[in-house]
Amino acid sequence: MQTAVLRLNCDDKKGIVYNVSKFIFDRGGNIIDSQQHTEELDNRFFMRVHFDRAEMKVTKAEFRRDLAQLAEEFGMETELSFGDERKRIGIMVSKYDHCLYDLFLRHQYGEIKADIAVVVSNHPDLEHVAQNFRVPFFCVPVARENKEAAEERAIALLRQHYVDFLVLARYMQILSGRFVEAFRNRAINVHHSFLPAFKGARPYHQAYARGVKVIGATSHYVTEDLDQGPIIKQEVVHVSHMHSVADLIAMGRDAEKKVLADAVKAHSEDRIMVYRQRTIVFD
Amino acid sequence: MQTAVLRLNCDDKKGIVYNVSKFIFDRGGNIIDSQQHTEELDNRFFMRVHFDRAEMKVTKAEFRRDLAQLAEEFGMETELSFGDERKRIGIMVSKYDHCLYDLFLRHQYGEIKADIAVVVSNHPDLEHVAQNFRVPFFCVPVARENKEAAEERAIALLRQHYVDFLVLARYMQILSGRFVEAFRNRAINVHHSFLPAFKGARPYHQAYARGVKVIGATSHYVTEDLDQGPIIKQEVVHVSHMHSVADLIAMGRDAEKKVLADAVKAHSEDRIMVYRQRTIVFD
Amino acid sequence: MQTAVLRLNCDDKKGIVYNVSKFIFDRGGNIIDSQQHTEELDNRFFMRVHFDRAEMKVTKAEFRRDLAQLAEEFGMETELSFGDERKRIGIMVSKYDHCLYDLFLRHQYGEIKADIAVVVSNHPDLEHVAQNFRVPFFCVPVARENKEAAEERAIALLRQHYVDFLVLARYMQILSGRFVEAFRNRAINVHHSFLPAFKGARPYHQAYARGVKVIGATSHYVTEDLDQGPIIKQEVVHVSHMHSVADLIAMGRDAEKKVLADAVKAHSEDRIMVYRQRTIVFD
Amino acid sequence: MQTAVLRLNCDDKKGIVYNVSKFIFDRGGNIIDSQQHTEELDNRFFMRVHFDRAEMKVTKAEFRRDLAQLAEEFGMETELSFGDERKRIGIMVSKYDHCLYDLFLRHQYGEIKADIAVVVSNHPDLEHVAQNFRVPFFCVPVARENKEAAEERAIALLRQHYVDFLVLARYMQILSGRFVEAFRNRAINVHHSFLPAFKGARPYHQAYARGVKVIGATSHYVTEDLDQGPIIKQEVVHVSHMHSVADLIAMGRDAEKKVLADAVKAHSEDRIMVYRQRTIVFD
Repeated sequence: MQTAVLRLNCDDKKGIVYNVSKFIFDRGGNIIDSQQHTEELDNRFFMRVHFDRAEMKVTKAEFRRDLAQLAEEFGMETELSFGDERKRIGIMVSKYDHCLYDLFLRHQYGEIKADIAVVVSNHPDLEHVAQNFRVPFFCVPVARENKEAAEERAIALLRQHYVDFLVLARYMQILSGRFVEAFRNRAINVHHSFLPAFKGARPYHQAYARGVKVIGATSHYVTEDLDQGPIIKQEVVHVSHMHSVADLIAMGRDAEKKVLADAVKAHSEDRIMVYRQRTIVFD
Repeated sequence: MQTAVLRLNCDDKKGIVYNVSKFIFDRGGNIIDSQQHTEELDNRFFMRVHFDRAEMKVTKAEFRRDLAQLAEEFGMETELSFGDERKRIGIMVSKYDHCLYDLFLRHQYGEIKADIAVVVSNHPDLEHVAQNFRVPFFCVPVARENKEAAEERAIALLRQHYVDFLVLARYMQILSGRFVEAFRNRAINVHHSFLPAFKGARPYHQAYARGVKVIGATSHYVTEDLDQGPIIKQEVVHVSHMHSVADLIAMGRDAEKKVLADAVKAHSEDRIMVYRQRTIVFD
Repeated sequence: MQTAVLRLNCDDKKGIVYNVSKFIFDRGGNIIDSQQHTEELDNRFFMRVHFDRAEMKVTKAEFRRDLAQLAEEFGMETELSFGDERKRIGIMVSKYDHCLYDLFLRHQYGEIKADIAVVVSNHPDLEHVAQNFRVPFFCVPVARENKEAAEERAIALLRQHYVDFLVLARYMQILSGRFVEAFRNRAINVHHSFLPAFKGARPYHQAYARGVKVIGATSHYVTEDLDQGPIIKQEVVHVSHMHSVADLIAMGRDAEKKVLADAVKAHSEDRIMVYRQRTIVFD
Repeated sequence: MQTAVLRLNCDDKKGIVYNVSKFIFDRGGNIIDSQQHTEELDNRFFMRVHFDRAEMKVTKAEFRRDLAQLAEEFGMETELSFGDERKRIGIMVSKYDHCLYDLFLRHQYGEIKADIAVVVSNHPDLEHVAQNFRVPFFCVPVARENKEAAEERAIALLRQHYVDFLVLARYMQILSGRFVEAFRNRAINVHHSFLPAFKGARPYHQAYARGVKVIGATSHYVTEDLDQGPIIKQEVVHVSHMHSVADLIAMGRDAEKKVLADAVKAHSEDRIMVYRQRTIVFD
């Protein structure tokens, strides 16, 4: 696809939309879709432009170089990506397979506009699933005493497979600060509660004990603070006194799959921008 | 508010987004938000631009005149509205008061960016509600033999109160073709089913008989074909065998209020464009 | 209505359902609906029986006396209520009127099987609403220095109007332990978040700052611990980066009305049983 | 599991709940859960009793024989099933695999209390999926000229694998009346719209053309009238003008999986009773 996505943010000021459309038009691009947002508390402006570059007169490199100038002029942070450079996904899992299957199947149906490059797990159990979908699988066991080495090995494997972003599909290990840093705003986790409620371990047990009438799941970017990264997507499911903890776990799986898949799709299509603890997710 | 909304549609071609932003920028306007959409089947392009005209160098009339030229050049249909010209709503009701109260209360909370100018009813029952909210109320009884005269009187009352658009808040009379024509794409009705299921009379009874597990409500623009106008908003409610027809009626009221209010809000803010039997509703 | 509702709970053991149905049958009652639940963690059994007593051979007093014997035999806690003794509701409000209107209107439509006996407010603002619906309104201002006296006056007014249970319809004062005790498991509050997230003040502001993608509302019984009482009902609304704090407040109102009304309906119909920090809410 | 489920329906009359509980109690059974429902239009009574028979003094055959007497006395239709006789599922598919995977995975997680006995398809494409989950797969091609023979072969295969009920997991052939008759109230289909809207072929295309703002899916028992059998479960998904037909198809898959799985679970646990064109589905 001869398209590109430009995302930018800067302090709000007059003429940005015009200047960005002019910038693209002048180089022979044609805007397919453009979206904007202004954060109300501090007047920060965000924009995503999806444009056709089939008739563009400049190379990717020239476009990038010119964009840097525009960015300097307006004090913009920019990100640029091209439709013909599909992103590559690295998935990390442990023993639960529902999110893994869900990602494979959605990918197969063409819902996810990116490729699944590799699966890394701290357990060998799910190798057969990766095999069925013809995706390389590596088992990297993690024990307390080898955690640093294991993480290094995992990062090496991810790099070796040219992974652009990471999906923790119910991966049951906490990533170290170094790992988090290596995938800043590029590692998506799913937590099995409607955060900020029920952070940490066993959220369905917490939910049962508290007697809530909804349970949920949250996908978010991983940060150093456990379960506190910028939220991408949330779903809930209505429950009642009838449901045991086991029921909550079963009912929650659908929500987990959904929020994780939606986050992966949005990230793959460059629809997300992170600002402080919030995300802007353009439809 | 020194803002304006421009809506336009035309056959898709290169450079529209750029030319529209340039048009506004050249006249001193500043784009706050812009949204686009292309109908996939026939490549029709739609755009809504919300812009600030506080520092605009041209009058409203000059802007309109120049816009006509741009429209001709691109073969555009355009609609322009100004933030300082709040729309005026005419409400028609019969005996059910839930939608009427809901609109009054949401207006009072500032959710609806328009003014409620007048209430017209074919029954006297709800006069006290209009009175409580200090809105003029007129009773225009409709009988088979006086229908034409009654409609003329209603239209006259709506015009007299400078009504920009009409809301049928569970109004139980079918409007004639002439009435529909007078408010083409400006009359919003609520039907108490998830259309196209259960058109016509007593949809909750139909739903009960069919044994559906969801009921719903639909807001749509009124056309000559009963319950077949372009849909603006739909909500559903999950139901079960436990619910009697009376329960469905009660549970449906919340959905009716919601879809009608959402349609009124969207219309008030010039977020809706009608294209054939579909609506584009920009968020 | 010649019906009654018996609620009971006891340690689970064999034959309870049979013995309860026999108890009712032997006295000429006819079971319309019966529901059971067992709390999985400690095997506590709960039952609600709705029965017709039109052909009952015993008086209410005799039934109660016999029931006490059955309860002793099985170690049951029981509650009995009669369809011809409609409950009386006391509403407490401050300045927001959306929940108040909602309760009045649902009552008027017959959705709430109880009567609204009195409205008590710490502000005079909403007197006109109560007046429109012909319900006595009393203003009892609360200041730091008179809080105890004000609460006593409020309790006196509620008793004077034979209030069976209390509804805090966005009442902005924290009840003292003494007040809570007087209405143990009979005071329903609405909190404007999906608890346990965002306890305390300004939950919509907290939700905005955290960047959540759902907001919600919770109805619960009032206990000494703020916003930690047994949850009755929860609703959520999906939101996005586009929504300001003001939008969240507006969107949340619908959820607040819904969870409060549903709790009031369930309590009115004796459908709720409280067990520790959880509620059993029979449909 | 030493449990059983008794379902019954009869004209409503006094003492049924009591007599049924007595019947079970007298034979040493212990009621775990019992639910009732009365259809309001014609006063038909429905009951489902889940009971423990670990300490039962009678054999299954004796229980059945005695039950027949009770049934005659009250004019009841009854169905009895035992927890130690797990139902066996036959799945029919064509080329779409999402519902098939979903059923396999939910079964593997223990969500479905029945066994998947066999998969029959009119295409060879999905054999590898059945293989991965170790379930026999048979390809029975259907062409216009061999339809009757093909159906006979399919029915024979289903019988050979002791199939109790049939699941059409996006099976793209219409069953003949004879096939329907062989699995009366035991064949569950999923239709990709919120019926009764958009019956027949290509419902997502119909939905797009009509411009609806929700799409959905429906699971129902198969009858001779296409897409008109008793509805078991319905889900909807909110959509907007932004979504193409391809988007609707993708978004609908989640709803299809959900309504089909929920129907399969409910049928497996004997929670469904069919009455005319409606279903009673006990939680």
